[in-house]
Amino acid sequence: MSCIFCKISAGEIPSYKVYEDENTLAFLDINPVSTGHILVVSKKHFANFEEADEETLCQVIKTVKKIGLSLKKNLAVPGYNVAVNNDPAAGQAVPHLHFHVIPRLLDDGLKPWPPKKYQENQAEEVLNKIKIS
Amino acid sequence: MSCIFCKISAGEIPSYKVYEDENTLAFLDINPVSTGHILVVSKKHFANFEEADEETLCQVIKTVKKIGLSLKKNLAVPGYNVAVNNDPAAGQAVPHLHFHVIPRLLDDGLKPWPPKKYQENQAEEVLNKIKIS
Repeated sequence: MSCIFCKISAGEIPSYKVYEDENTLAFLDINPVSTGHILVVSKKHFANFEEADEETLCQVIKTVKKIGLSLKKNLAVPGYNVAVNNDPAAGQAVPHLHFHVIPRLLDDGLKPWPPKKYQENQAEEVLNKIKIS
Repeated sequence: MSCIFCKISAGEIPSYKVYEDENTLAFLDINPVSTGHILVVSKKHFANFEEADEETLCQVIKTVKKIGLSLKKNLAVPGYNVAVNNDPAAGQAVPHLHFHVIPRLLDDGLKPWPPKKYQENQAEEVLNKIKIS
């Protein structure tokens, strides 16, 4: 087992554990974007979203909800981002599916990525490629 | 019913529908961060993560997985981000819980938010506030 999040899940590497149940674990990101930035993982190893089974995704998203409730209640944050960077092209640094929960403050200076516009017919073309029937 | 995503779910406002089932809907974001940027919503209205029940969260995350698979298969993207901006402080513009699925390309120029470090004892202090026992 060489995966760092598997080792954290197994207790072989210490972490700041915020929540743990049979299937999931939530712990502080030690390189936080903001104070209270948390990572939620399944104990079972999946590299990414596509590998993870539906049952595991349900377990993880329930834990994400618990974490969000705790952040709002106990850090009094007015909002948070939930984010998965899926695969290296999306910024995934550890190849074990993990959900970031990032507390936000009003005017904290974190900028959203800029929106664009589709050119004429481009949206239809994209839709025709990806539509699931 | 004044919620725009409820109106889209009900078919009262047109959208580029990528996927639909009994409980969820996925459609193109018309102000995309990248080509193929999709929003996944539950048809039932919930303002945010804390309001949504666990069953609905499971339904939505399963649809997110379907969307990711389609983006990888049909747009050949090497990765994507899944993101929820929860509450206005986190950038939520429409008060109906929605998951962004944002296709990514290598070197597309979209920057992650910068990581920080905790000061001495700060991580422990945060942990003690938010830990769920």
